Amino acid sequence: MAGHPAGNMKPSLIEALAQDSGGQSLLSHFTECKYHKRHLLFIPYHKENLIFLVKQGRLRVYLALRGKEISLAILGPGDVYSTHTRAHVEALEDTTILTCPIDTFLIHANQQNTLIAALMGSVGRLMTGAISTIENLYFNCADKRVAVYFYEQAASLGQEVKEGIYVKIGLTVDNIAKIVGSSRQTVSTLLSSMEKAGIIKKLNRGEYIVRDMRELFLLANSCSE
Amino acid sequence: MAGHPAGNMKPSLIEALAQDSGGQSLLSHFTECKYHKRHLLFIPYHKENLIFLVKQGRLRVYLALRGKEISLAILGPGDVYSTHTRAHVEALEDTTILTCPIDTFLIHANQQNTLIAALMGSVGRLMTGAISTIENLYFNCADKRVAVYFYEQAASLGQEVKEGIYVKIGLTVDNIAKIVGSSRQTVSTLLSSMEKAGIIKKLNRGEYIVRDMRELFLLANSCSE
Repeated sequence: MAGHPAGNMKPSLIEALAQDSGGQSLLSHFTECKYHKRHLLFIPYHKENLIFLVKQGRLRVYLALRGKEISLAILGPGDVYSTHTRAHVEALEDTTILTCPIDTFLIHANQQNTLIAALMGSVGRLMTGAISTIENLYFNCADKRVAVYFYEQAASLGQEVKEGIYVKIGLTVDNIAKIVGSSRQTVSTLLSSMEKAGIIKKLNRGEYIVRDMRELFLLANSCSE
Repeated sequence: MAGHPAGNMKPSLIEALAQDSGGQSLLSHFTECKYHKRHLLFIPYHKENLIFLVKQGRLRVYLALRGKEISLAILGPGDVYSTHTRAHVEALEDTTILTCPIDTFLIHANQQNTLIAALMGSVGRLMTGAISTIENLYFNCADKRVAVYFYEQAASLGQEVKEGIYVKIGLTVDNIAKIVGSSRQTVSTLLSSMEKAGIIKKLNRGEYIVRDMRELFLLANSCSE
């Protein structure tokens, strides 16, 4: 199969789906789309949350910000990916993909096996984390990465309370430093200055309130390179 | 469920497995292991290739090289990961995991649904790619990243031929630069010097022969920071 890594004998997703009747019924919910070489298929936060399978051709998945870009993956026949990420997806060659809304996919996959939705959820969280790490390392300056991290945690997992957004980071400063790829000292200094500026407030070990999400966002995006 | 992101209503892997008889029989191949806080569970290229589910506690997955380290993910109850990666896995708290050899898991999952092995294969390649990108950005200097990339491609996908290892990169120099997070000029310069030194030989567009894997390895690991 063209574009597939040599020596990879595992069945591809499309082959696997075609092999049994359950898979065939799942495949019937997918729509075939063709794109020419260099076409930009998806941009970050594409409005539809789709899963797609590559039938033919090759695609490049990449992150782009402030004039820089970095590739995450080159997808070939049989590969699977989703649109609802922070990545751009472009065709490196004339390409055919099969797309399906992720909710439709999970409902129909779930009818056959509850394992699939759970696997996809867990692996999706891992991929999202890895993409955040890459973005942070490549696009953000070391002394602001912790602001980016707090903003993302608050935006995705925070709970609104009277004083702002409560977020349980649940990690030591040392562990936060190792997540954002920065030193303990740098993280500690920025946390103190964010607390002095009234942007965040530390409650207990690993628990914070973000008092001003707008200021935190501006700080996170203030890198000048 | 403690440690689970708030608002995540998808069933966790363990819940999903317990829900039907097929899942329960799959779960019967897993072994429960308990670890104390700070225990290092797995080191890179752990000899057994295991999939593991987190039952209780939290784990940190991290990359470490030359005295630096960076975290990839914090795993909590219901998360899934595998041991056969370049990552270390340590317990942040007292932790219980369920482990199963990946081959056993795939055989038994496959008997229920061919989709799972295919999904895991495709997603596994994506995660491996993301981890390589993070390693490259965080640990390697920009002017050697292309040597690291060629070494990895040759080691994983190369085919032995008379002159060395044939590897089809299949990408333009510009695309290689965007994968390794380096400039087109830097990549082009290093490729030329590697060709002059007899380490690689360019055949056609995107096709190369690595003539000296040992020299390529040394070059890839010669960053001094």
